[in-house]
Amino acid sequence: MFKYEIELLKDWIERDNSFFDIASYELRDKEASGIIILKNSEVVLSGIEIIKRLFEEYNIDYDFKFNDGEKVDKGIIGEIKGNAYNVLIVERTMLNILSMMSAIATKTHNLVSKIDGKTRLAATRKVFPGLGNLEKLAVLHGGGDTHRWNLSESIMLKDNHIKMYGGIENAINTARKYKSFTKKLEIEVENEKDAIIAAKNGVDIIMLDNFSAEKAKETARKLKENYPHIIIEVSGGISEDNYLEYVDDNIDIISMGKLTTEIKYIDFSLEMK
Amino acid sequence: MFKYEIELLKDWIERDNSFFDIASYELRDKEASGIIILKNSEVVLSGIEIIKRLFEEYNIDYDFKFNDGEKVDKGIIGEIKGNAYNVLIVERTMLNILSMMSAIATKTHNLVSKIDGKTRLAATRKVFPGLGNLEKLAVLHGGGDTHRWNLSESIMLKDNHIKMYGGIENAINTARKYKSFTKKLEIEVENEKDAIIAAKNGVDIIMLDNFSAEKAKETARKLKENYPHIIIEVSGGISEDNYLEYVDDNIDIISMGKLTTEIKYIDFSLEMK
Amino acid sequence: MFKYEIELLKDWIERDNSFFDIASYELRDKEASGIIILKNSEVVLSGIEIIKRLFEEYNIDYDFKFNDGEKVDKGIIGEIKGNAYNVLIVERTMLNILSMMSAIATKTHNLVSKIDGKTRLAATRKVFPGLGNLEKLAVLHGGGDTHRWNLSESIMLKDNHIKMYGGIENAINTARKYKSFTKKLEIEVENEKDAIIAAKNGVDIIMLDNFSAEKAKETARKLKENYPHIIIEVSGGISEDNYLEYVDDNIDIISMGKLTTEIKYIDFSLEMK
Amino acid sequence: MFKYEIELLKDWIERDNSFFDIASYELRDKEASGIIILKNSEVVLSGIEIIKRLFEEYNIDYDFKFNDGEKVDKGIIGEIKGNAYNVLIVERTMLNILSMMSAIATKTHNLVSKIDGKTRLAATRKVFPGLGNLEKLAVLHGGGDTHRWNLSESIMLKDNHIKMYGGIENAINTARKYKSFTKKLEIEVENEKDAIIAAKNGVDIIMLDNFSAEKAKETARKLKENYPHIIIEVSGGISEDNYLEYVDDNIDIISMGKLTTEIKYIDFSLEMK
Amino acid sequence: MFKYEIELLKDWIERDNSFFDIASYELRDKEASGIIILKNSEVVLSGIEIIKRLFEEYNIDYDFKFNDGEKVDKGIIGEIKGNAYNVLIVERTMLNILSMMSAIATKTHNLVSKIDGKTRLAATRKVFPGLGNLEKLAVLHGGGDTHRWNLSESIMLKDNHIKMYGGIENAINTARKYKSFTKKLEIEVENEKDAIIAAKNGVDIIMLDNFSAEKAKETARKLKENYPHIIIEVSGGISEDNYLEYVDDNIDIISMGKLTTEIKYIDFSLEMK
Amino acid sequence: MFKYEIELLKDWIERDNSFFDIASYELRDKEASGIIILKNSEVVLSGIEIIKRLFEEYNIDYDFKFNDGEKVDKGIIGEIKGNAYNVLIVERTMLNILSMMSAIATKTHNLVSKIDGKTRLAATRKVFPGLGNLEKLAVLHGGGDTHRWNLSESIMLKDNHIKMYGGIENAINTARKYKSFTKKLEIEVENEKDAIIAAKNGVDIIMLDNFSAEKAKETARKLKENYPHIIIEVSGGISEDNYLEYVDDNIDIISMGKLTTEIKYIDFSLEMK
Repeated sequence: MFKYEIELLKDWIERDNSFFDIASYELRDKEASGIIILKNSEVVLSGIEIIKRLFEEYNIDYDFKFNDGEKVDKGIIGEIKGNAYNVLIVERTMLNILSMMSAIATKTHNLVSKIDGKTRLAATRKVFPGLGNLEKLAVLHGGGDTHRWNLSESIMLKDNHIKMYGGIENAINTARKYKSFTKKLEIEVENEKDAIIAAKNGVDIIMLDNFSAEKAKETARKLKENYPHIIIEVSGGISEDNYLEYVDDNIDIISMGKLTTEIKYIDFSLEMK
Repeated sequence: MFKYEIELLKDWIERDNSFFDIASYELRDKEASGIIILKNSEVVLSGIEIIKRLFEEYNIDYDFKFNDGEKVDKGIIGEIKGNAYNVLIVERTMLNILSMMSAIATKTHNLVSKIDGKTRLAATRKVFPGLGNLEKLAVLHGGGDTHRWNLSESIMLKDNHIKMYGGIENAINTARKYKSFTKKLEIEVENEKDAIIAAKNGVDIIMLDNFSAEKAKETARKLKENYPHIIIEVSGGISEDNYLEYVDDNIDIISMGKLTTEIKYIDFSLEMK
Repeated sequence: MFKYEIELLKDWIERDNSFFDIASYELRDKEASGIIILKNSEVVLSGIEIIKRLFEEYNIDYDFKFNDGEKVDKGIIGEIKGNAYNVLIVERTMLNILSMMSAIATKTHNLVSKIDGKTRLAATRKVFPGLGNLEKLAVLHGGGDTHRWNLSESIMLKDNHIKMYGGIENAINTARKYKSFTKKLEIEVENEKDAIIAAKNGVDIIMLDNFSAEKAKETARKLKENYPHIIIEVSGGISEDNYLEYVDDNIDIISMGKLTTEIKYIDFSLEMK
Repeated sequence: MFKYEIELLKDWIERDNSFFDIASYELRDKEASGIIILKNSEVVLSGIEIIKRLFEEYNIDYDFKFNDGEKVDKGIIGEIKGNAYNVLIVERTMLNILSMMSAIATKTHNLVSKIDGKTRLAATRKVFPGLGNLEKLAVLHGGGDTHRWNLSESIMLKDNHIKMYGGIENAINTARKYKSFTKKLEIEVENEKDAIIAAKNGVDIIMLDNFSAEKAKETARKLKENYPHIIIEVSGGISEDNYLEYVDDNIDIISMGKLTTEIKYIDFSLEMK
Repeated sequence: MFKYEIELLKDWIERDNSFFDIASYELRDKEASGIIILKNSEVVLSGIEIIKRLFEEYNIDYDFKFNDGEKVDKGIIGEIKGNAYNVLIVERTMLNILSMMSAIATKTHNLVSKIDGKTRLAATRKVFPGLGNLEKLAVLHGGGDTHRWNLSESIMLKDNHIKMYGGIENAINTARKYKSFTKKLEIEVENEKDAIIAAKNGVDIIMLDNFSAEKAKETARKLKENYPHIIIEVSGGISEDNYLEYVDDNIDIISMGKLTTEIKYIDFSLEMK
Repeated sequence: MFKYEIELLKDWIERDNSFFDIASYELRDKEASGIIILKNSEVVLSGIEIIKRLFEEYNIDYDFKFNDGEKVDKGIIGEIKGNAYNVLIVERTMLNILSMMSAIATKTHNLVSKIDGKTRLAATRKVFPGLGNLEKLAVLHGGGDTHRWNLSESIMLKDNHIKMYGGIENAINTARKYKSFTKKLEIEVENEKDAIIAAKNGVDIIMLDNFSAEKAKETARKLKENYPHIIIEVSGGISEDNYLEYVDDNIDIISMGKLTTEIKYIDFSLEMK
């Protein structure tokens, strides 16, 4: 659980203070304690579980008042205590994780809470490589859907695949050869006609790419009439300004890249006692 | 050069298509070519050198029309050609790198170009762990100063250090015990009095933290009169709205976290031919 | 694609000849060529693609007459040429991969070819850690279904999960909280009543565990009448002797651990020229 | 001790539940306990020490009633207690290790116990890469000889080496140039004449490859008369059906690939309480 | 802190006893205690902190009477207690670290203590790759300056750089383009004229390479008159026999490769009780 | 072959120029060529094969006039050509490898060449961790015996083992339980009586520890009379001054720690053209 991410964070910290951090070196046998302070309000926290795991790796004790997914206002969110050298070298990395993840969770939460209906909001694969899964975790904490965690988890045929395979039918049939019954098959389509072809060929999810809200709803309705088990996703060109237009009984998922590509860090700080 | 980052990107891609990406598997013996398109304008490119290295790792040939640091408008920026499976699994990661780095370079460039004087704009350590050095590289491409690449490169005594060491003088003298003559020593101070103490104790750089523009300029002037070789940096609470107020002959560096904490991805896409 | 497995194989080979293999050391500047010979007949090949990748890592040229999944008889299956030291240290590992994978592919093929109907034969998670995914790949080459590649790909609630969650309904509802719409949810049930509860709670796949063939068919029929989109899998106590009894229009999948837990290596050898 | 193997197992488990196993995620703060049950009888246990190490890595407490190498009948072999999430993600890997290793140990034990004399039964290098050393460890638990753990441990000149070096004498003399006095030198021969040449050239071990039992005993007798310190091994075409024909005062070692290439997992299960 | 070095040491030890050390295997459940004995006198200890970290990795308790940098005479320096297998496999590596590092610290201390003045003695980059940073740490324990820990820490333009850049001025100006204000720039010069050019171009440190003591002092004096903030280093052809001739008010640093390239291990042993 | 060492060297170099070496960065698209010069005479080269492998990793072409083990005088030993950035970051590491390994090879050669008889000179385990195997390789190039490459290669019972096992006989019998027939068993003894006990218990090698030359020869003679196949090694307190006293028909091996613990780097340099 999160092993890769924790190892990557440790690597990052160890490279950061490679050999040693001279500013903190003399404190290597001292104890230190401090408080973690949130400086913004109406923030949905995210990153708490991850930084707890990180503190454990550096034998730093912690006591947090809140969990991931909770909405909190400015003030002290937790206390830590441990070796002073370790606290100082973990400080900035830990704050950056909290700031980035809480930014995404808060934004997701704000957008999700305005949806009146069962349509869900999902992230895309537009995440920064390396710790991108933490961005998806933050979306989950904010009440969104993570979408695929990676390419090999489920199967998605996009425009470039369809072009390379020479058409929708061939793309679907080829992918199916290697697909286990445990996986879903999704396809991206550009128009209603292709959506119908995809549905006939038995996909599990159809993503309507760059459809206007009106056209998306109309196509979704037609698909659901005949293929009620197919999941309908809309994507492309959707922003905070227009996403609510896509909310509809026949649209299961709205996916929005901006959940993770337009970011303003939430402000946290560590104050040693 | 960039070895850690390239390895991390490869790890990310290999985990992404762990075992294999079923959607692209049948294309593993096919060739593919495509164009990389920039969809925004007045963009300072960043990430070109990194994705070239990445393409080389996957035996993908490339031909780019621009280099990092160049300002370009929307249109085709390069072409690629290689194994179709490889192109498809590298696609999203490569685009995300370009989008994030160019966003930072462009923002940095826009802010730097408005400075009339020799004061330089620098990044901070507020970067997302893992590939955070690429954020600093983007700042360099945008004409900014990277500041420290990591904790062990140079020595910086911050508020928490000074508290732990029981004062500025002790902090400076302790750090100096382990410091090679090849390194600089920087200290963060909260007021003019501390700035003078630091200067007397022989630091190389003084960072005025959370000073108003007026107070910062005044303190910088006093310091430079007696200690012309000390570099003066201002930091804390500086945004796009007020940074120009700090530009001054006695202030060498303005460091601004928001260069890397408020981001809007630039839009790039890959279109297979 | 296969990156983890190829790296693991290289690690294995490098540890095997750690520092150097003294028996082959003097041949380190010599060229060698050889033929790979299959000594059994009616064998479904598996492992060719993997060992090609391995040969490439050691700069060994190859020319194979067959591909994975092809049925062949005893005789020469390919030729190789490269640095003599490299050929000698790769030899045994390469042969072991071919022998193990072809054993599984051949067995799978033989069992699958006797099924008259659309029921598919699938592997389980009973594979040897480390290179266990190669065992699943061999099942694919033999015409079987790989089932889940790993725990995080799709979601399966087994007896121990249900016990820990205090019942089927709670287990399903809990798992759904973290589940993306891109994933399927499977549950293992011990009797018909539980199967009906699972179906009502909207799972995608129901695995009938340790059902007699007769009871499995009866339960599958009842489920399919009301929930035609649910996939029915049978598992537990199924062997080469009785698996054909489970073939049925209402049973989609028969999973059989013995595909990978009862193995007799196929015999291959390398003969230097 | 076993570090590489334990790390590989952890890697395997972490890749298996990469990011997280959704089915078990909600149990991440729960405790769980369970029993490990052996379902077959007359089993020589192997893998206990390895899975103990693995449990320690996941902070799972254990209490086993038996050790590696003990012969036991069906029933409970141990109890475990720990974090429920950890128990669930380690479960299948741990059972697979026990099942595979105990299968090899039991088979080895059964064959060794029928040998009346001092001839020892040894494994070969026909093991599955990655965790192949665990197969050798299982042979040791079953009372067999592991043979070489790897290529660099001792020196063995096989048919392909001899062909490349242009004859037995040259092969031996070349290998000796790099050989420390701490290592043994073994050679594989096809006939009695070559065996004599090898003996004259001072090897430590001679392996008679593909000799009939009669011919092997005759050659061994002749070699021992003049070179009593040379160890005689027979190998090639030896199975459970004929290996006892090779037991002889002059034959020190019978090596048999089938100890590790023909496997039927022993059946173990974990039952949560 | 020292993470890379500790991991490298563990790797080394695990490769050393790969799979297992048969000589010590039966002791794997036994406890052992022992004393570490220094057999030479007037030794400046170095390596204590590193081996403490190593002992912690193997759960070996320790009690040392001295710290790094202390000057001690022959006798017991510490006691250890832990798992017997672990003690035995760590023994030789731990002794080798102590022997090598204490040799360097002692030599450095002896040379530094003869300097009458503020000139400091520094190491160079002539260290054995892999654990070379431990050699620099030993120099620190002996009272010397570590010089650069690595190429990316600070910037040094050497003869080959200057040749490639086509002269001193171009070299300096090029390097400055990528240089953060937090780093120092050093240049190596062959004569007084080049030293003056370098000083005019604003470098932080000038290294006088292969200057006679007389010429070095003269050049240093001229530089300091006009550029008192520039640090002057001498290097090249300096040995234990002539280094004191370079001690001078205008020379800040004498760097000497022989601190780490001419070594005689100090003698330590472990005696089990 | 040397894979671990080459990887370690690359890691070292990449950490050395982590992110990038600013001094050389602008040369990253330039070509460079240079000559490697030996500055001492009567040097036995060692490290050539290793640095060739290293150059290959950085795509640097090379042309060497000599091989490892050759005795050469001062002058040009080879030329290189490649990317200027790569040449500059590899330079110091490559020179350090050559300097250290050639120092050991030359010393070994000088000592071995004075031995009149068949007694061989061997290294010990007193090598610096990390790249210690390169020190043993240098001993081989100098004409010495490497002794054990690692703990798991062959089995050696030393004083601490014997103490822990409660005597020689028990130590030997315990170790034999896990020993394959492919390995040798060596024991260290303190006196003639123990040597006889060890011989009776069937060890392959006896090491006479800290015996005077006279006593060693006498004991060796007695052992060889009854156990001519046992290899006799002397060790402990042997230096360049007294090792020739131990040369004797009954003594097979003299092992000497000082081959690797008293080092003076040979002087090499790289001169760019």
